[in-house]
Amino acid sequence: MAVYTHVPSEEMAAFLTRYDTGELVSAKGIAEGVENSNYMLETRRANGASERFILTLYEKRVDEADLPFFMDLLDHLGANGCKVPRFIADREGQKLQQLAGRPACLIEFLSGISVTEPTPAQCLAAGRAMGELHRASEGFAQERRNALDLPGWHDLADKCGTHLDDIAPGLAARVTQELAFLDAHWPNALERGVIHADLFPDNVLMSGDAVTGLIDFYFSCTDIRAYDLAIMHGAWCFAADGGAYHAARGASLVRGYTVAHGLSQAERAAFPILCRGAALRFLLTRAYDWINTPADALVTRKDPLAYLRRLDFYAQANPADLLGA
Amino acid sequence: MAVYTHVPSEEMAAFLTRYDTGELVSAKGIAEGVENSNYMLETRRANGASERFILTLYEKRVDEADLPFFMDLLDHLGANGCKVPRFIADREGQKLQQLAGRPACLIEFLSGISVTEPTPAQCLAAGRAMGELHRASEGFAQERRNALDLPGWHDLADKCGTHLDDIAPGLAARVTQELAFLDAHWPNALERGVIHADLFPDNVLMSGDAVTGLIDFYFSCTDIRAYDLAIMHGAWCFAADGGAYHAARGASLVRGYTVAHGLSQAERAAFPILCRGAALRFLLTRAYDWINTPADALVTRKDPLAYLRRLDFYAQANPADLLGA
Repeated sequence: MAVYTHVPSEEMAAFLTRYDTGELVSAKGIAEGVENSNYMLETRRANGASERFILTLYEKRVDEADLPFFMDLLDHLGANGCKVPRFIADREGQKLQQLAGRPACLIEFLSGISVTEPTPAQCLAAGRAMGELHRASEGFAQERRNALDLPGWHDLADKCGTHLDDIAPGLAARVTQELAFLDAHWPNALERGVIHADLFPDNVLMSGDAVTGLIDFYFSCTDIRAYDLAIMHGAWCFAADGGAYHAARGASLVRGYTVAHGLSQAERAAFPILCRGAALRFLLTRAYDWINTPADALVTRKDPLAYLRRLDFYAQANPADLLGA
Repeated sequence: MAVYTHVPSEEMAAFLTRYDTGELVSAKGIAEGVENSNYMLETRRANGASERFILTLYEKRVDEADLPFFMDLLDHLGANGCKVPRFIADREGQKLQQLAGRPACLIEFLSGISVTEPTPAQCLAAGRAMGELHRASEGFAQERRNALDLPGWHDLADKCGTHLDDIAPGLAARVTQELAFLDAHWPNALERGVIHADLFPDNVLMSGDAVTGLIDFYFSCTDIRAYDLAIMHGAWCFAADGGAYHAARGASLVRGYTVAHGLSQAERAAFPILCRGAALRFLLTRAYDWINTPADALVTRKDPLAYLRRLDFYAQANPADLLGA
C-alpha cells in the first residue's frame, strides 16, 4: 500500500480548522489499509495536549455511498464497548468531507501492533474480540450487501476465466468444481448479521496478548455470521510463510469466539464448508488482482496460491482439527 | 516512496529490546525519505511515558559504509544546537544494526510539518536554519565526497545519452552545452564545507514559521558551501505546480542564510552559476531515474522538465532577483 493522493500540509492544516482538534504539528503518509491514502496526524491544543488521528482519503475501491454505513456501524460498536476507531465529526457534526478532490474522513487513532505469527493466546483474544463484535452489532439495524458472496465469487471466476490457468495449471477447473460444491452445500440457513469480513491479523491491534483495536471495516457487510469466523480462521491459523496449519491456534480462536458469543451446533457442523468458501473468496480476489494489476501499480500483489493451499487443506480437514475439542 | 522491506512486528519488538526505549506499542510503515523503508514506532516505558522513533532500513540507495559519516555528523550538529534527528545507540553503544537482512537504525523522531508553498517568512527561517547548519558543521573533521558533483553530472549525462531526447526534443544538446558552460565557469575556488545537498521543503519540519527539524541527511557531503544554498533556492523559490519564480521567497531565503552565516562577495557573484549547477544536478538525476525506473517500481517518478525550466530561468536571471536587494 502507499499514499496515492498527496495532500500538501497547508491543505491538511486548513482542513483541521473545521474540527475541534487543535493545530496540526505532524503529518506522515502511512502505508496501511485497503487502497486508500492514509496519513497519521498529530495535533496540539492551546493547553499543550497532543492527540493523534488517521486522515483517510478514499480512492476508487471504497464507494462513497457506503461510508455512512461504516460510520454508523463504528459509532454503534464503540457505544457498545468495542475498541474500534470512531469517525470524528467537525464542529457542524459533519464526518464526511472532501479533501484534495477525494472523499475524506478524520478517524480516531488506536495504538497497538499487528502480529504476524499469532500465538494461541493471541488467537484466543482475537476470537473473543470477534465474538464481542458480533454481540455488540446485534442492535444495529442497517444492512449492507456483501458483494463478495457466493454469487460474487461466480462473477469473479467468470471474469478471471482461463487466465486462472496462467497462475497455476488446472486452477480454472478446480475453481469451477469448488463453486459447484459450494452451490450445493452453502449453509444459507445459518444466522446472519453484521460481519467484519476481513479480520486478518493486520486489522487487529494488540498489546501483548490483549486486543487494543479492530480496524479497517471497509469490507463489513451483512452475511452469515459464522462465515466471519471462517475468514479469520484462514487468516490467523496458518504459518505466515504460506505453510502449515496450527491446530492450537484454530482451537484457541474458536474457543475465544465461543466464550464471547457462542457457536451453534449448525454453525459448527457447517464450519468446514464456510472455511472452504472463505478460502475460495481470497483465492479469487487475489487471482483477479494478480491478473488485472498493472505491472506499474503501487500495490504489492498477494499470492493467490497461498489460498489454494488452504482450500485444499479445508476440503480434507477433520472438523475437530478446525474447531478444537 | 513506500515500505520496501516488511518487518513483522514481532521482529521489531525483539529488535527494540536491545535499546533502553520501553516496549513497542505501535508501528506504522511511513511513506517518507529517499529509497529506504521507514517505520514510525511508539514505545511505552514501565512508568507509562511514551516516546516515538523512526526505524530506518537501508535499501540499495544508501551505502552502509557512509552511515558512520551521517551518524557522526548528526551527533556533531545536534551537540552544536541544530535541530537534527540523532541516531539512537543501543545499550552496548551500537547504532548500526541489522534487521530483516538490512542495515537498520533507530532514529529520533522530530515533529513538524513540511510546507509545499513556503511563505517568505518560512523561507527566511529555512535559510537561517541552513546558515546555522553550516556554522555548526565548522568543527566537523570528516569528509565525504559528493558523488553528484560536476564530474558526476558528466557521468550521468553520458549514461542518459540520447535517451534525454525522449524526455524532450533537444534536451541532450542542451545538457551538453550547459555542462560545457559549467566546466568553464564553475567556481571551484569558493569555500567548501559540509553541505546537506538536499534541503528541499520535504526535509525541513516546521511549526508555523519556525523550523522544528532538518532531516534526511543521506546526501550530505563535502562541497562548495554556497552550492547548498543554491540547491535550496531551486527547491524553495518556485511555485510547487512547476511554475513561477517567487522573488520574495528568494530574497528571504538568502537574507535568512546571510544573517545566520554570511555570504561573501565571491559567493554572491557566483550564485547564478551555482543555481544553474543545482538545476542541472536535479534535471540529470530525475532524467536518469525517468529513463531507468522500471514501469513497475514503487517510486513515483519526478518530472525532470521542472528543472529544465529552472535552468532556463537561472541562465537568464538578473542576480539581484535571485539574491534580493
